[in-house]
Amino acid sequence: MSAFTLHPQLAADTLVVGDFPCCRLLLMNDAQYPWCILVPRIAGAKELHRLDDADQLQVLRESVALSRAMEQQFKPHKMNLAALGNMVPQLHLHHIARFRGDPAWPAPVWGKHPAQPYVQGLADERIQQLRHALPGLTPPD
Amino acid sequence: MSAFTLHPQLAADTLVVGDFPCCRLLLMNDAQYPWCILVPRIAGAKELHRLDDADQLQVLRESVALSRAMEQQFKPHKMNLAALGNMVPQLHLHHIARFRGDPAWPAPVWGKHPAQPYVQGLADERIQQLRHALPGLTPPD
Repeated sequence: MSAFTLHPQLAADTLVVGDFPCCRLLLMNDAQYPWCILVPRIAGAKELHRLDDADQLQVLRESVALSRAMEQQFKPHKMNLAALGNMVPQLHLHHIARFRGDPAWPAPVWGKHPAQPYVQGLADERIQQLRHALPGLTPPD
Repeated sequence: MSAFTLHPQLAADTLVVGDFPCCRLLLMNDAQYPWCILVPRIAGAKELHRLDDADQLQVLRESVALSRAMEQQFKPHKMNLAALGNMVPQLHLHHIARFRGDPAWPAPVWGKHPAQPYVQGLADERIQQLRHALPGLTPPD
């Protein structure tokens, strides 16, 4: 199987935070919500339930670590977790810190409001918060 | 802690399929999509990442089994998986079999179209398909 490469749509829509042992951690370039995406670095992966048991467990562990870090750093009212992939087939897991009063609350975020790209300072701040809370992250290859 | 009871909104919106060792399996009463919901029978649970490790792993195993069963029985183009909970705080995981050409495709299903409750025959058929593919399910308490 060919090597992992990030889907161009995900690459265009996000900023790279770092790598867990299995997944690449991305920050969605939408300042309306603290919104992270985990992408298992497994070539051809499309569905969580088709990964082998060890990879599923590792993705779960990284997802839980990310959710806990986002909760700690951003203090949301609720975390939203989703693997959809109807438009971008590469397996990716959304982790979104939701607040009462955010632009889409209480609806899911998808399709509600166009993305509002970060101005540089706030993106850097959120990336540093995530790296601080997830010291095991490594720079991406 | 008090005993597990299903949130009244989930009880109103779904039909009961059966119990996994950890989760209750529900069929959303919306004939537009094969749409199942897993509810861990853990009193007070709101976020997957706050469960203990053993419960997280068990929920993952049951989610994977359900996704595989839905894929086998309904042959969707994509499975959608989500834990949102902005409106119903009890932890619940959506598993939705999505088809190109279904009423919401390629958008997520939430907020797109009002539910179309099943006529009795088709709901029974889908419940029987799920029970057939998941022989370890037990009748709910």
